[in-house]
Amino acid sequence: MPGSGKSLLSSILKEKGYTVIVMSDSVRKRFEKDARHGERLMDYARRLREIYGEGIVARLSIEELKGREEKVAFDGVRNLAEVDEFSRLGKPLIIAVHASPATRYERLKRRMRADDSVREEDLRRRDMEEIALGIGGVIAMADVVVINDSTEEEFKRRAMEALGKLD
Amino acid sequence: MPGSGKSLLSSILKEKGYTVIVMSDSVRKRFEKDARHGERLMDYARRLREIYGEGIVARLSIEELKGREEKVAFDGVRNLAEVDEFSRLGKPLIIAVHASPATRYERLKRRMRADDSVREEDLRRRDMEEIALGIGGVIAMADVVVINDSTEEEFKRRAMEALGKLD
Ligand SMILES: Nc1ncnc2c1ncn2[C@@H]1O[C@H](COP(=O)(O)O)[C@@H](O)[C@H]1O
Repeated sequence: MPGSGKSLLSSILKEKGYTVIVMSDSVRKRFEKDARHGERLMDYARRLREIYGEGIVARLSIEELKGREEKVAFDGVRNLAEVDEFSRLGKPLIIAVHASPATRYERLKRRMRADDSVREEDLRRRDMEEIALGIGGVIAMADVVVINDSTEEEFKRRAMEALGKLD
Repeated sequence: MPGSGKSLLSSILKEKGYTVIVMSDSVRKRFEKDARHGERLMDYARRLREIYGEGIVARLSIEELKGREEKVAFDGVRNLAEVDEFSRLGKPLIIAVHASPATRYERLKRRMRADDSVREEDLRRRDMEEIALGIGGVIAMADVVVINDSTEEEFKRRAMEALGKLD
């Protein structure tokens, strides 16, 4: 979910030698050439799903692999159909990062990136959009949930511990 | 999710002086009088939702309160519309219990309660039914996630710690 800290997890995975494919980047590439006037990235992705199926973004991300990678992580899974697509590469492991809405909204407000709206109401609406895409099902079926409700250091420690158990 | 250990959390809450309303019991009471021949509890609940709206099970559960309780917990929230219903009583706090599918399926097989099917495929299908009800959104928006991937004692410790922070 937005502000949970999943990109921090990606950095950790990179440090551990994983090739990280950021799924929104796979969409963004097409989006830049193909989007309708004024269309938001999320709406574009929704349109792709309607045309090509629920797993399309995963398939676009898989396309980016050179095929020689041993350890691959996909950052930004939004539904279980995507997980099914990844299963064709090997047994996928779902890692979810959780923080409470209160904590996430605090962080998003502090960060105030261009694409993060700042009003609580807007943040909530965005959460509901993510949930409508199916992200809740992915979290519910996660193999590991790393809680990010404390410091960055503590999160790293927890993530390393969780990843250690999986190796 | 089934086998995550949420009823253990309910016991802990009871010990802490909470009135716990088990939402499936609220459904079950009506189900016993009102179900169609061969209908499963979950299908009955789904039918209730189609008729009375997504928040109906929460409303039935609220009905069970005597109105004098100070600390109330509802065990078995399945969608965010139910959370909205609870908001009418005061600001609700969502606590989710997480365990990996592998761990949950192990537990469910060991437990083998009458209503828990034993084949992995069936357990997975039931998970997908719970997700279709909307439980993933509730987990995604949880204020607290307690991880239950270790011993019962460790889970209790984590739950007490999490609840302590909330008081
Ligand atoms: N709030 C609810 N809405 C719909 N179905 C529910 C709800 N709570 C429990 N059930 C169903 O009742 C059964 C037992 O639920 P539980 O006691 O929470 O494990 C499951 O099949 C659930 O899907």
